[in-house]
Order: sequence, then C-alpha cells, then structure tokens
Amino acid sequence: METVATVGLTNKAELSLAYTPGVAEVCEAIAADPGLTRHYTWVPNTVAIVTDGTAVLGLGDIGPAAAMPVMEGKAVLFKQFGGVDGVPICLATTDVDEIIETVVRLAPSFGGINLEDISAPRCFEIEDRLKERLDIPVFHDDQHGTAVVTLAALVNALKLTGRNAESTRVVISGAGAAGVAIAKILLEAGIKDLVVTDRKGVVSSDRHDLTPQKSALAELTADRTGRSGTLAEAFVGADVYVGVSGGTVPEEVVATMADDAIIFAMANPNPEVHPEVAHRHARVVATGRSDFPNQINNVLAFPGIFRGAFDVHASAITEGMKVAAATALADLVGDDLAEDLVIPSPFDPRVGPAVAAAVAAAARRDGVARA
Amino acid sequence: METVATVGLTNKAELSLAYTPGVAEVCEAIAADPGLTRHYTWVPNTVAIVTDGTAVLGLGDIGPAAAMPVMEGKAVLFKQFGGVDGVPICLATTDVDEIIETVVRLAPSFGGINLEDISAPRCFEIEDRLKERLDIPVFHDDQHGTAVVTLAALVNALKLTGRNAESTRVVISGAGAAGVAIAKILLEAGIKDLVVTDRKGVVSSDRHDLTPQKSALAELTADRTGRSGTLAEAFVGADVYVGVSGGTVPEEVVATMADDAIIFAMANPNPEVHPEVAHRHARVVATGRSDFPNQINNVLAFPGIFRGAFDVHASAITEGMKVAAATALADLVGDDLAEDLVIPSPFDPRVGPAVAAAVAAAARRDGVARA
Repeated sequence: METVATVGLTNKAELSLAYTPGVAEVCEAIAADPGLTRHYTWVPNTVAIVTDGTAVLGLGDIGPAAAMPVMEGKAVLFKQFGGVDGVPICLATTDVDEIIETVVRLAPSFGGINLEDISAPRCFEIEDRLKERLDIPVFHDDQHGTAVVTLAALVNALKLTGRNAESTRVVISGAGAAGVAIAKILLEAGIKDLVVTDRKGVVSSDRHDLTPQKSALAELTADRTGRSGTLAEAFVGADVYVGVSGGTVPEEVVATMADDAIIFAMANPNPEVHPEVAHRHARVVATGRSDFPNQINNVLAFPGIFRGAFDVHASAITEGMKVAAATALADLVGDDLAEDLVIPSPFDPRVGPAVAAAVAAAARRDGVARA
Repeated sequence: METVATVGLTNKAELSLAYTPGVAEVCEAIAADPGLTRHYTWVPNTVAIVTDGTAVLGLGDIGPAAAMPVMEGKAVLFKQFGGVDGVPICLATTDVDEIIETVVRLAPSFGGINLEDISAPRCFEIEDRLKERLDIPVFHDDQHGTAVVTLAALVNALKLTGRNAESTRVVISGAGAAGVAIAKILLEAGIKDLVVTDRKGVVSSDRHDLTPQKSALAELTADRTGRSGTLAEAFVGADVYVGVSGGTVPEEVVATMADDAIIFAMANPNPEVHPEVAHRHARVVATGRSDFPNQINNVLAFPGIFRGAFDVHASAITEGMKVAAATALADLVGDDLAEDLVIPSPFDPRVGPAVAAAVAAAARRDGVARA
C-alpha cells in the first residue's frame, strides 16, 4: 500500500497551496468551524484499522508487528471495495485502558475506527467504551462484519429451504467475538431458538463456569428455550449450524440435524465440517473459504458499511445499519438464489454500492446521520 | 491525499493473497522473524507525522483538527519529494507524557516519527524522550528541518562573501524550536560567535528570567563570548542575522550590521526584515517565502532525510546525518552560486536523491544503519 497525493505539486504555485502559506487559510477556517474538516481534509474518508495483535486470524496472539500484513490487506480491501482510505495502526500495548486512551487520542485524525483481531472478551469492553467516548463510527469487524454476512447468507438459506426465522433452530459453535455477534444479530433478525456452544458445551445458566460475558450470552440464547448439554446434543434436530470455533464436528453428529439442514462451517483454513461431509447431510453449505461456493467473507460487508456511514457523516454504526447491510446483501442474490449461491461474490460490482446505500438510509432512520 | 493498493485485487486468487488465507503466511513469517516487517509491509517506508496542534505555522495553538491540513500537506510533500508514505496523526492531548506514551504505542506501525508543530519547550522533551524509547528515526522538523536548510544556505552565503565559520558573528532572533536547533547546528558546523535573542534581548546567563532550556542555550551561545544586551546591541557589527521569531527589526538596527551582511528573515508570511529593506544593507538575503529568491524551505530537507534514513533502515537520525544533508544541499548549488541563489529550488530534481544519499552514507559512518 502507499499514500498518493490527490493534488498537483509540480510548481511553486501548487506547492504554496498544498503547504505554507496557502495551507494556513484552511487551518484558520477549520479552527473557526471544525465542521469544515469534512470538506478540507482526508479525515472524513479515512478509517483507522486498529489492532493489538492478540487474536490475528486463527494464529492467535502474534503481536503488533506480525499483525501488520492483515491490517494492510484490510486497508487495501477498504479502498478497493468501498473507496475508503484505511490506515493500519498496530499498537504496542494489550492493556484495555491504554488501547482505549490511545484510540481516543488518535480520533481527530480519522473518520472512523475499525477494530480488528483483538481477543475476546477484551474486544467487547474496548468497543463498548470507545463507542461511548467517540462521536465517529467504531466497528469491531470480527464481530459485526462476520455477523452481517452470516445473517445475509442465512436469510437466503432460510428462504431457499422454506423456513421462517421464528421456528428455526440454530446452533452456533464458538463463543468468541464472532459467535457472540452472530448470536445477537440473529436474535435481532427474529431467530428465537438459538444456542451458542464453547468447548464445554452449550453456554447456559445451569453451568457454573461462565464468565460475566457468557452469563449474559446464556440469558439471551439457551436460557430462553431451556436448552443445555453437549454440542452433540444440541445438534440433534437443529436446522442451522454456524461454526466460528475451529475444531471439528464429527460426521455422526452432523447426521443428526433436521432435513434440509443449513451448515455454515466458517473456520479458516479448516472448516468445522468439511464441505464434502456437510453436503451429505445438508442442503445449503457455506464456508469461509474462497475455493468453495458460498464464501462467508467479511469483505462483503465492511467496505460498504463504512462507505455508507461516511457518505452521511454518521456518528455511529447502529444495529439498524448492520441489519440493513445484511438485507441489502441478501437481496442482491435475487432470482439467482440456489443451494450454491446464497451470498453474492465479493467481485460483484453491485455489492459495495448496495450495502452503502442501505447503510446510509438506515443511518438517517436511526438519527445518526449528520449530512 | 489517499491510500492506494500496490497489488492487484481483481479476482479470487489476488484476494486470497492480499487477505485470508494468503496473508496468514506473511504474518507467521514476521512472527518468527520480526525483521521481515521490512520486506513484507509498508511500515519501513512510512512516517507518522505527529502533532498536538499547539504551534501550527504562525497560527499558534489551534488544536488537532485545525492542524490536519498542515500534516496532510506535509504527507503529500514527503511522497512527492522523498517517495516516503506519510500518515497524518493529530492527537487529542497536549500532555507531554500522554503524547510520548501514545507515540510509543503507535511505533510498530511506522518506520519513523516526524514531530510537527508542537510548542516549545514541550517539543524538546517530547523528542528527547521518544529518541530514548524508540529504535526508529524521531525527527522534529520545525527544529531540525529548518536548521539543516538554514545551515546549507549559510554555508553558501559565507563562501560567497569570503567568510570562514570561525570568525563569523551570528545573531539569531527567536529562542523557540527553530532558533534552538539552528543555534546547535551552526555550532556543530564551526560557528563560534553566536547569540540567540528572545523578546527580552540576548539569551545570556546574566539574565535572571531564564527557563532551564534557555539557561542551557545561553551557556552554549552568548556566554562563550560574554555577549549580552538588547537585540539592537547584538546587531552592531554582526555578519549574519537569522530571524525565526516573527516581529520586525527596524531598518536603523539592520543598518548597523557588518559590510556584506547576510540576512535570513524567515518569519512567514511577514519576514522580520522585508527583503527590500534587507537588500539595502546586506549582500545575501533569504526568506521563508516562495515569492522571493533564496527560500529557506524545510521541504528541501525532510523528504530526503527520511528517504536516506529509510534506505539504510536507520535506527535514528544523528547530528552527522543532519550536517551531511546540509552539506549536500549546499553543494548542489555549485558553480551557480550567486547572491540570489545560495540554496537550490525545491523543484530541482537532484535535491531529494542528493540529500538521501548523503544521509544514508552518514548513517553508515555513525553506526545507525541496519541495512
């Protein structure tokens, strides 16, 4: 990646505009009316992609230096698919308070903050507190980007298999950043019967080993239907399996799902259920991989979400904006809907603009648009 | 300004290289050998341009948002004249400790730190402590960029007027970031008789109102020759006047300088001595403005200095590297040396490469080159 000037700089006149003395006029104008930042700088189109390197891809806590390639890749995707300028920021601290203070101090330089690859449960507190402190969009992509694309794919998979949200039974394996966010957006979208599992089985309040975050999750999910037990027990009769855990689900467990089952096995590079196995027991199969059909890929969401938020100078990214993004993504598939096409391709040129338009409209509805 | 991808991203294969799963291999390689950051990311070519907005141009403490246009302009110049990618960072804090901690936490994301428009004397402490904490170049351009270009112009002005450094008497008005750094680099370059003045006159130890920084400055400058008194007294018989103070020097004071005097009146937009007035009493006149000959412009220095430091993966920018940059700049004028040409034009395409080469060579001599 590189930075590039958007103004000419080949003679004295242009130099004196881009720098002293011309730039002083712009500074004075912004000092008098801070809103002019939006018109006279790159700030409103620029997102900081912030990590502490503690949960990088499936590699874990590899530190800020080794996390940089992911952040730089993300910046490239932001530009390519959303026209958003991304700046990778890899922090040399893993302390929650220090991360929050650092991002707050950086905030005047950016139009939004994309949190990335920060381990759970720290990521929840960091995002929540930054949202309180800042009046620009703060978005933890590992949670919400994944959740938006999962919801989009699920909306179409339910349509294809003739299900409605209210009577669909969902099992999510993985109670980390992605699992929690997927659970929340599915509840938001009308799913009622939903359990999340971790290594010890269904996250439910009859367990005595739950962290405060998992207790809250249990109340939102398994406790509502009184479900508990092992992952294998949860699979029996389930309509939908969403895997964001790594690990492997044995075929005999997969075989106990309902007819016309839906399996999203999203671990990378090794899906929890290999697509070949999944297809023997399910009608719709999706993964996180680009070499199988139905790739659940965050790049379908985050560039358009920030594009839409930036287009209306949004002060936040609301639940409504996320659901709108998912709905727009699902709608794009349209009449092409089929078992191997429940989600559009990242290279479908309609994706970014459609998501951005839906998100911008939702921002207006939710009262967070400022332009 | 904008960010641009340096890799293609138009099909699945390219996407899977720039992002998951391909990027994981790069992350793992860097986790195993952090030195590979240099080859696999944009970090080694990227400088953070950091300000707290407390001393922006001549505008003063206008805050981080209003400072952004200067930082963005600077980033554009870094790229245009040095091929260096600059990222503007405007901080929402003016606390010295907080600024230092924040920059230390950001450091894994950048190959170097350019401090900018931070008020004196805070800027001295911030730079000194960051240099101790970090193993990448830290450079306060308002100090050292200005000092390098001033020294370059002075070397040529002395040559033109047949002076040697040892017997030349210099008056600098302004004891802020630029004045202090100019004083230090001139001493480094062999000037012996040098005073710095502030609003109360010559900074010398017979005054009782000096801050610790100014006491140290007095010992380095006026105390060595026992000079003291008013600005007007200091001018009598002086060979060189360097103005980095704002304010105005009356013509009758200017008239008391030595024959063939040298006047660098660098305040922007209003030089301390207008060039028309200066020319009546001096042989060589320079300003900070682009609409007069001999513009003392930092852009002659900072892009090439960082280019040279980055080319050898330098761990710091030493005094030797700064003097080498000044010498290279002065040498570029060569046989064209004349009263109205003591410093090259920023648009002379030889400038960036010549400064970079001299700085890289000096880094090797000084033992800070790591490649």
